[in-house]
Amino acid sequence: MKHENIHHACGNKVSQAIQPDSAVAFFGKDQPLQLDSGIVLSPFQIAYKTYGSLNTHKNNAILICHPLTCDQHVANPHPVTGKAGWWDSLVGCNGILNTNRYFIICSNVIGGCLGSTGPASVNPQTGQAYALDFPVITIGDMVRAQAMLVNKLGIDTLFSVIGGSMGGMQVLQWASAYKEKVFSAIILASSARHSAQNIAFGEIGRQAIMADPKWQGGRYIDTGETPSKGLAVARMTAHITYLSEGTLHRKFGRNLHERSEITFGFDADFQIESYLRHQGFSFVERFDANSYLYLTRAMDYFDLAAEHKGRLANAFQNTKTRFFIASFSSDWLFPTHESRIIVHALNAAGASVSFAEFETDKGHDAFLLHEPVMVSAIKGFLESGARAIRGLSGDGSTS
Amino acid sequence: MKHENIHHACGNKVSQAIQPDSAVAFFGKDQPLQLDSGIVLSPFQIAYKTYGSLNTHKNNAILICHPLTCDQHVANPHPVTGKAGWWDSLVGCNGILNTNRYFIICSNVIGGCLGSTGPASVNPQTGQAYALDFPVITIGDMVRAQAMLVNKLGIDTLFSVIGGSMGGMQVLQWASAYKEKVFSAIILASSARHSAQNIAFGEIGRQAIMADPKWQGGRYIDTGETPSKGLAVARMTAHITYLSEGTLHRKFGRNLHERSEITFGFDADFQIESYLRHQGFSFVERFDANSYLYLTRAMDYFDLAAEHKGRLANAFQNTKTRFFIASFSSDWLFPTHESRIIVHALNAAGASVSFAEFETDKGHDAFLLHEPVMVSAIKGFLESGARAIRGLSGDGSTS
Repeated sequence: MKHENIHHACGNKVSQAIQPDSAVAFFGKDQPLQLDSGIVLSPFQIAYKTYGSLNTHKNNAILICHPLTCDQHVANPHPVTGKAGWWDSLVGCNGILNTNRYFIICSNVIGGCLGSTGPASVNPQTGQAYALDFPVITIGDMVRAQAMLVNKLGIDTLFSVIGGSMGGMQVLQWASAYKEKVFSAIILASSARHSAQNIAFGEIGRQAIMADPKWQGGRYIDTGETPSKGLAVARMTAHITYLSEGTLHRKFGRNLHERSEITFGFDADFQIESYLRHQGFSFVERFDANSYLYLTRAMDYFDLAAEHKGRLANAFQNTKTRFFIASFSSDWLFPTHESRIIVHALNAAGASVSFAEFETDKGHDAFLLHEPVMVSAIKGFLESGARAIRGLSGDGSTS
Repeated sequence: MKHENIHHACGNKVSQAIQPDSAVAFFGKDQPLQLDSGIVLSPFQIAYKTYGSLNTHKNNAILICHPLTCDQHVANPHPVTGKAGWWDSLVGCNGILNTNRYFIICSNVIGGCLGSTGPASVNPQTGQAYALDFPVITIGDMVRAQAMLVNKLGIDTLFSVIGGSMGGMQVLQWASAYKEKVFSAIILASSARHSAQNIAFGEIGRQAIMADPKWQGGRYIDTGETPSKGLAVARMTAHITYLSEGTLHRKFGRNLHERSEITFGFDADFQIESYLRHQGFSFVERFDANSYLYLTRAMDYFDLAAEHKGRLANAFQNTKTRFFIASFSSDWLFPTHESRIIVHALNAAGASVSFAEFETDKGHDAFLLHEPVMVSAIKGFLESGARAIRGLSGDGSTS
């Protein structure tokens, strides 16, 4: 990647953090966000996208909770990269999240870098970017902010809340903290608490960023530089964990990159090396290093049982929400046994729960892909729920 | 870690690279090392340790091939860290590699940093450290140099060659390139070729080192600085891959480090974070960053079948070596299916082979630990071999 590109992209990235290409809900001094740390964040804003229309009964809203490095641009081209939305295949007039029937909402999480208040936002007390003065946030904080947005949009009950990975953590938090507002919940490739191994990988990413002298204690935004190398290493490491050994073997194996023989050097001889470098360096175009620190930390801190006296079932007591939990056989970051822990807790709480483990070699990333069995299972689950709601079932009707 | 310590350790590290606390075999201009890259390395030296005595028949020698970040100090305190030798539990008068019976040899690999010629060694053409002028070496080169050492020690046939991980790759190379010199071969937690996932992790480590501005294109030795942060991140990442999710959960889980509540910050709140940081920063005391680049590259390049027209069995044609292959159930870096590939090739070549997969939750590192079932299996395999060799069986006899 050329030096000029980084700077151009960085400029764009910062402007998306402050002036996003999406709707923004502003919460002034009268509507502070009470954080789990005890700190009050105020004022703050939530950047969000919607697709489709809210029906007259206001009962057709689906909230999508995005994973770590995604954002609110679910089904439109990304404002920085120009690439299709990250769940474009699921959301639209032909998708299972049918915009003729449902009102789809996705907001950038608090702590993110696509327009919701985060470490790249301006700290009103200093006039400069928050950087590490931004308070450490939790999954609970993200969801509390989303609930304020949903309230502002005039919605009492969400027909469904859906998300994978960090998004799935948010869905679990929604289903626990706002039981009465969640008719159904879809949790993909996720967990009710971050495992030791996942905390370890989170720590690697943070250490890689903080080891980059351009990080400058987080104050890089003031200097016009970015810890691109550190963030790229963080992304490369995380990216391996999103795939499976099987995928890597099938896609890359030991194939060489644009050469017929090894070069006895440290260039990217192998396709997997070239692919990883591309993943690392394209990521820094669209993501803020400090946001990466905050969001991985929020995942590390997530432990839903701990908030309920160590018993996960307590989190779902008296729930009427319908749950759909799914895992992917080759996902070693959020393996199936993490989903089973959630299912067992829901069973113990007497909740309505469907569970599926999908066979795939695509690893953790499978939930982002158009996996036919996953898509048809979610479709069936949503349709079954829609039949129970007045006016929501049927073909394309939104009222 | 304090700044002074790093510098002190660095000094010690460089001196071990040049003036090691072990025997050194010097190979002058008349004994060049022909490398797979086509380059000739000359002069060069091999630092090594021996334990026990060579018997009069010279048939009791066991060569230990060390893994990536270990060295020749198998069974004596490490000259930098002062810690016990890395296979101390196996080697000694009470170990299964019984020094009353066997003559144990372990040499630092070519490209290493504990006294064998590597990137930290002085390039005779410039009078300065080789750094990246050191030629890229392969597993084949390591073994070719070891064979010269074994020859110099007056040994025709090794009773056994044993190693795990990168050490196992060397054993495979020995058994293929020097069939007649290897009576038995023990390959633990290894593979006949580095997988795409392992190349990916290797690349992460290298990128982390090279991203550290103190790396300075590899010329840090001249400046008295070291890319400690980059090397620490490389080590931390690798260290996760040496353990299993089960071990991490059992040893650390979500336990907090010397605190009763999370701090809403980026300090090491969790024990796993503190443990990883310790692993990273203690590693830089004893290991050279450039060596790390070279040795991981050698592993990436290893593909024994490719050297034999794509058919691994060809590597072992007409072999008379007795093989013992072992894998560990929770090792996801060198999983059991990699060992099975070796076993199938050995079967196809009509070789004598025993194979075991040991149940353990200790991951890849299990081969370094005193796993009782592994130890007793290796003991049985060695004793069976010793019974076939004149004067080698029996209690403590070395002649």
